[in-house]
Amino acid sequence: MTLPLHILITGSAGFIGSHLVERFLGEGHFVTGVDNYISGQKRNTELFLSHPNFRFIEADVSYGIPFEGENLDWVMHFASPASPPHYQQFPIETLMVGAQGTQNALELAHGHGAKFMLASTSEVYGDPLMHPQPETYWGNVNPNGVRSCYDEAKRYAEAITMAYHRTKGIDTRIIRIFNTFGPRMRADDGRVVTNFINQALSGQPLTVYGDGSQTRSFQYVDDLVEGIARLMGVTYHEPINLGNPDEYSILHFAQIIRDRVNPALNIVFGPMPQDDPKQRKPDNTRALQLLGWAPKVTLREGLERSLGCVQTTSLPS
Amino acid sequence: MTLPLHILITGSAGFIGSHLVERFLGEGHFVTGVDNYISGQKRNTELFLSHPNFRFIEADVSYGIPFEGENLDWVMHFASPASPPHYQQFPIETLMVGAQGTQNALELAHGHGAKFMLASTSEVYGDPLMHPQPETYWGNVNPNGVRSCYDEAKRYAEAITMAYHRTKGIDTRIIRIFNTFGPRMRADDGRVVTNFINQALSGQPLTVYGDGSQTRSFQYVDDLVEGIARLMGVTYHEPINLGNPDEYSILHFAQIIRDRVNPALNIVFGPMPQDDPKQRKPDNTRALQLLGWAPKVTLREGLERSLGCVQTTSLPS
Repeated sequence: MTLPLHILITGSAGFIGSHLVERFLGEGHFVTGVDNYISGQKRNTELFLSHPNFRFIEADVSYGIPFEGENLDWVMHFASPASPPHYQQFPIETLMVGAQGTQNALELAHGHGAKFMLASTSEVYGDPLMHPQPETYWGNVNPNGVRSCYDEAKRYAEAITMAYHRTKGIDTRIIRIFNTFGPRMRADDGRVVTNFINQALSGQPLTVYGDGSQTRSFQYVDDLVEGIARLMGVTYHEPINLGNPDEYSILHFAQIIRDRVNPALNIVFGPMPQDDPKQRKPDNTRALQLLGWAPKVTLREGLERSLGCVQTTSLPS
Repeated sequence: MTLPLHILITGSAGFIGSHLVERFLGEGHFVTGVDNYISGQKRNTELFLSHPNFRFIEADVSYGIPFEGENLDWVMHFASPASPPHYQQFPIETLMVGAQGTQNALELAHGHGAKFMLASTSEVYGDPLMHPQPETYWGNVNPNGVRSCYDEAKRYAEAITMAYHRTKGIDTRIIRIFNTFGPRMRADDGRVVTNFINQALSGQPLTVYGDGSQTRSFQYVDDLVEGIARLMGVTYHEPINLGNPDEYSILHFAQIIRDRVNPALNIVFGPMPQDDPKQRKPDNTRALQLLGWAPKVTLREGLERSLGCVQTTSLPS
């Protein structure tokens, strides 16, 4: 990318958003972050507040994005509660940031002639009947279950992104982010990586839901950020999977963390949540061909880098 | 139902909306219709303007519903472009009426303690891999194709309806309407029923897309309205299919209309549109058990009642 760009990131105080801010500032770009802290964290804003190229706007993008600058090269829409405990606590807000939030971000991009990137998700595949999932797979999502506030919001966000691309010619990107982990994840985000790490570090038994045979793939955040940066340099409008295809059963994953932190800990089993996907694994062929991208950080390397970096704030009540 | 109720219907000037207005006025209820005429027709409002129990508000419900009365028993959200040529002409408006429009209607219901009904669609099943489709089937929808502006808007509308039901306790209903036909369909709505009737009545060849082996089921509008009226008397929040399970291949359907109107006409074949579903047929078990409802009007009876009732206005340009 040529220097410097002006990049606006919604959800800049979130886990992934904050890593994007860090990357782009490190490359010399100007970054405007936007967050309302519904699930983002102020410490992720404070990290960058002293940087001369960083600006922050506290706003709920579902009600508008009060950006007053003139030049904008990219609008990157990463705002949304993204872990099941968060989005199920805020289902209407999650639906709104997928619809009104995405539309406001698209309008901002359109008004400034900026490019637009949507952070979509592997959740658009739901509980997939095809494995691994290529981008051409249409998914298996319950349209009105307890997870639908997130899954359908993101499917809608893809649809309106393509509608703006088709009718208004906006230069759009859609990434489908698979499970990602790394430093600055919230300790209370309820996702399996942070749950296991927290339980292990605090000497508690690790809780596996169901029999643990359901599988997940875990991508280290630096790999995701590299894929995003490469996609900004390519003109391509269809969705692109970004995820690590190394697949682990949840039980095996618990064992890896347990053995790394404290082999004496127990693993206990709890009831499977409603509509929980049984397996999820990206087909990365498109990203490899288009971007020359493949994840490089193994699960064990990523865990080493993440242990000790888990944060310990609580959800807003 | 006890008399009289005050029922607000968004999309009151549409094909189905206008039949609901007619039914409820006929039963002695008060009806407030709302439409912005993006695909509804003024003549469908004019039909009822002289009725003492009818009020009309011209408004785009995606931007708010300026209802100023105090008492409201039902909000029935039927506003949306619904035929492929209409919603593909207005993809962003179609997405908005599914998101902001549904939310505005839910908020109106919530503010007045009214019950809420969402007009969803068999399109949430997409190109189904299960046949016939029960309400428990999650569908096979392209989340970003050319039909996604409608399909994903309706899936989102179901998700936000259930989110309001779960978090705010609104007494909601969701119907999934399968292909419906009858008097007051727009001649230019682009659906196969009106296309065939118009072509036959004007002496043109009937155009079948693809090889005509794709199937559809056609419900006469009076059956749908009866199912809706019955559902208003039952407390049930999960989606309910309302459609006619009598399945016809499109080619057979063309032959029926051709033979009825002018057996000398040709049937010609055109290319299949993108993402066109290959088959669609409701499993009506839930409606039968819950409402004692099953469609009564056969395709041939419905066609007799519809022939000559097709309207001939044009789309807004």
